[in-house]
Amino acid sequence: MSQPTQPNSPSIPRSIPWIISVDDHVIEPPHLWERWLPAKWREQGPRVVRDSYTIEWIQGNQIPRKGGDGPETDWWVYEDFAWCHQMLNACAGYREDQWWMGPIAFDQMREGCYDPKARVADMDMNHVEASLCFPTYPRFCGQLFAERSDKELALACVQAYNDWTVEEWAGDSDGRLVPLQIVPLWDPWLAADEIRRNAERGVHGVAFSELPGKLGLPTIHDPSGHWEPFFGACNDTGTAIFMHIGSGSHWLTSSPDAPPAVTANLVFLTSAMALSDWLFSGVLARYPSLRVCFAEGQIGWIPYVAERADVLWSKSVWAGDGPSLPEPPSHYLRQVYGCFYDDHAGLALRESIGVDQIVFETDYPHQDSTWPNTLDTVATFADALSDTELEKILRGNAATLLRL
Amino acid sequence: MSQPTQPNSPSIPRSIPWIISVDDHVIEPPHLWERWLPAKWREQGPRVVRDSYTIEWIQGNQIPRKGGDGPETDWWVYEDFAWCHQMLNACAGYREDQWWMGPIAFDQMREGCYDPKARVADMDMNHVEASLCFPTYPRFCGQLFAERSDKELALACVQAYNDWTVEEWAGDSDGRLVPLQIVPLWDPWLAADEIRRNAERGVHGVAFSELPGKLGLPTIHDPSGHWEPFFGACNDTGTAIFMHIGSGSHWLTSSPDAPPAVTANLVFLTSAMALSDWLFSGVLARYPSLRVCFAEGQIGWIPYVAERADVLWSKSVWAGDGPSLPEPPSHYLRQVYGCFYDDHAGLALRESIGVDQIVFETDYPHQDSTWPNTLDTVATFADALSDTELEKILRGNAATLLRL
Repeated sequence: MSQPTQPNSPSIPRSIPWIISVDDHVIEPPHLWERWLPAKWREQGPRVVRDSYTIEWIQGNQIPRKGGDGPETDWWVYEDFAWCHQMLNACAGYREDQWWMGPIAFDQMREGCYDPKARVADMDMNHVEASLCFPTYPRFCGQLFAERSDKELALACVQAYNDWTVEEWAGDSDGRLVPLQIVPLWDPWLAADEIRRNAERGVHGVAFSELPGKLGLPTIHDPSGHWEPFFGACNDTGTAIFMHIGSGSHWLTSSPDAPPAVTANLVFLTSAMALSDWLFSGVLARYPSLRVCFAEGQIGWIPYVAERADVLWSKSVWAGDGPSLPEPPSHYLRQVYGCFYDDHAGLALRESIGVDQIVFETDYPHQDSTWPNTLDTVATFADALSDTELEKILRGNAATLLRL
Repeated sequence: MSQPTQPNSPSIPRSIPWIISVDDHVIEPPHLWERWLPAKWREQGPRVVRDSYTIEWIQGNQIPRKGGDGPETDWWVYEDFAWCHQMLNACAGYREDQWWMGPIAFDQMREGCYDPKARVADMDMNHVEASLCFPTYPRFCGQLFAERSDKELALACVQAYNDWTVEEWAGDSDGRLVPLQIVPLWDPWLAADEIRRNAERGVHGVAFSELPGKLGLPTIHDPSGHWEPFFGACNDTGTAIFMHIGSGSHWLTSSPDAPPAVTANLVFLTSAMALSDWLFSGVLARYPSLRVCFAEGQIGWIPYVAERADVLWSKSVWAGDGPSLPEPPSHYLRQVYGCFYDDHAGLALRESIGVDQIVFETDYPHQDSTWPNTLDTVATFADALSDTELEKILRGNAATLLRL
C-alpha cells in the first residue's frame, strides 16, 4: 500500500499520520449483481430501474414508495422488494443547506459514492489512506438477503457482493479500499464457509449485527451455540467482526414525538447493548483471538459500561444462567475496538478504554461525515494526544485490526 | 438539622463530610393509608393482608401471585391489584449470600426499611446526615395511583402519601429524612396544586417519570403543553424534579435471553433517553429556575451525551419541529443533577458534567446499596477530589438542590 503524497493542510500544526478509516460506506453501483451473479441468476438478482416515487408518512418518518405521480429516482428491485437511496446517506459534496430528506438517484450523487477510483481521489483530498466500507443497499450486515425468500439466490447474492467488493471495489486500489464481507446470516455453517473462502484471498473483516435477536435471528447468548461455527471461523482466520449502529435494524428513542435530534443523540444505545452482550456472553473468553469493532457508536460511554460491568460481575446474584467469566468483563475490552469520529469525552478516558482499542472513521458519504474536512476534526483533539497515541488511533490500531 | 457525632471510620484517611443521599427508598409501613386517608376512604385504600403466594415465570422473570399453596407473605391490596415487596429491594442487613429472589414480608425486613427512627439510626452508622427516599409500593413516581380506576380515591391516596411523608416519615427527624412528594400524574393542574400545597410546608422535591410516554401519559415534548402547569409550579416554588431509573416502568435490554447482568448493566439507558429529552425539549430554557435530577442512572455517560447533543444542535437538519434552543444543549446541564453511587469514569469527567451538578446516593435498602459501608466506596474516589469538590459532591450540591 503506497501512501499518497498530499501534504497536511497548512492549518494543521504538526504532521498528522494518514488516516485509516474503519467506518465508511459504499453505494453499490447499479451493475453489481448483474455483473457478478452467475449467469443463471442475473435476471432475478437485484437490479436498478428508473421509476417515480411518492412519500408516505409513517409515524413521523418519510417512507418513499415506488410509483405514483411524483418525480423519478433510481430503484433497486429484487423479488417483491423495491428500495431507493436516501439523500442523507449519500450527501458527500453537498453543503448542509443543500441537503434534502428523501430519495437520491445515482446521477445526483458524487461519483466517489460508488466508483472506486473517484473514492480514492476523495480519500486523497481528506488525508485518508485506507477505508473500510459498510454495504448500503444490503444494509449494514447484509440483512436484506437474510429476509428474502429464495435462500439459494440470496446466498449467490451474498457471494456476488463479496466477489465484487474484493475484485472490483478493493480491486486495483493498491490496498486503499479494504474489503468488508457480508455472510449468509441465516446459516452459521454457510457463514463460516464464506469467512474461510474470503480469508484465503486476504479479507479480514466481516459485517455482523449488533443485535441479531432484533433481526429474528438467535442472539450471541443462544444456549444451543447457534453462532459457534461463525465465531470459530472468524477466530481461526483472524477475521474481525464489525458491528455498525443500526445493524440490528433497531433504533431506540424516548418517544415518537421527540425531536429528531433526540433520536440521533441516542444512536449509541444499541452499541451499548451490544457491548454489554459481548462482555458478558463468554464468546470473547472462548475465542481469545476474536476481535470485534463497534462502528459509529463512538466511545465516550464505554468506560462507564465496562466499569459497571465489572461491579455486576463481582455480585453472584447477576450471573444468572449465563456463562461464568474467568476474568472481569473489562478484561475482554482488549478484544474490542471502539470507533469514533468526534468524541472528546471518549478521548479524555482513552486509558480506560485502552489506547490500543480506539479506531477512527470519517463516515463518508453520510450526513455525519467529517469529509472533506476530517483534518479539522483531528486538529480539535490532536494536541491532547502524544505522537504515539495519535498514530495508533488514526491508523495503527486499524492496521492491526484489519491485518493491513 | 444537627449533625450526628459519629466519627469517621478509622479506615478513612481524612475527615469525610457527612453525606446527603438523594436516592434512598422507603418501604411504606402497613398502616400508611389506613392512618392518613380521610375516614371515608380508609376501607377502600391500600392495606396489607397476609396471604400465600405462588411464583409464575413470565419471560424469565419470577412474578409472585397472591394465593395458592405456597408460603405466606404480606400483600398490599387496593382495588383489584395485589402486590408484594421483592427481597432485593429491601435487603439491607442481609449478606449477599443470604439474598433470595422473591417476596419479603415486613417481619423479615430490617426495621430501618419502614421505621423513621430506625432509619436514622442506620444512617448514623453509615455517615449519612440526610436522605431523600423514593416511594416503593406506589412505584418510583406514584404511577400506581395513575393506573387505578377511581381517580378521586387515587388523589386522596397521593395526598395521604404526602401527608405521611411530611408528618410521620420526615416528621420529627430534625431534617434527617427529607420528604419527596408524589403527584396525581393523570392531571397536571391537580399536580400543580399538590406542588404548591407541599411547597408551603417546605417540600422541595417531587418524584416524576423519566419517560412519561411509556406510562401512557403525554411526553415532555407534548405540543399542546400538557405538563406546563406542573413545570410552572415546580419552577415557581423551587421544587426539584427527581427521576429514578425505571420510573417509566420501562426497562431496556438487548434480548430476552441475555444474562441478568446485561440488563442490570443497561439500566442507565432510560436515564440517557430522559436526559436527551430534557436537553432538547426546551423546558429547561422556558423555566430557568427548574432543576431536575436523575437518580441511580450514574453519571459516566453524561459527558458523551451532552457533547454529542451540542454537535447535533449545531446542524439544522436535526432540529425538526422541536423548539429552537437559544443555547447549545450542554448549557442546560446547569439545571440538571446527576446522581451516582460508584462511578469513577463519571468523576474523572466531573468538569464536563459540572462539579456543582453531581450528587451522591446510598440506595438504601436496595441490593445495589453501599450501606453500611458507603465510606469504603467514598474512600475509592475521595483522594482524587479536592476538599471543596468532595464537600459539594457528598452533600453541598444536594443541600442546594433540596434547599436544605
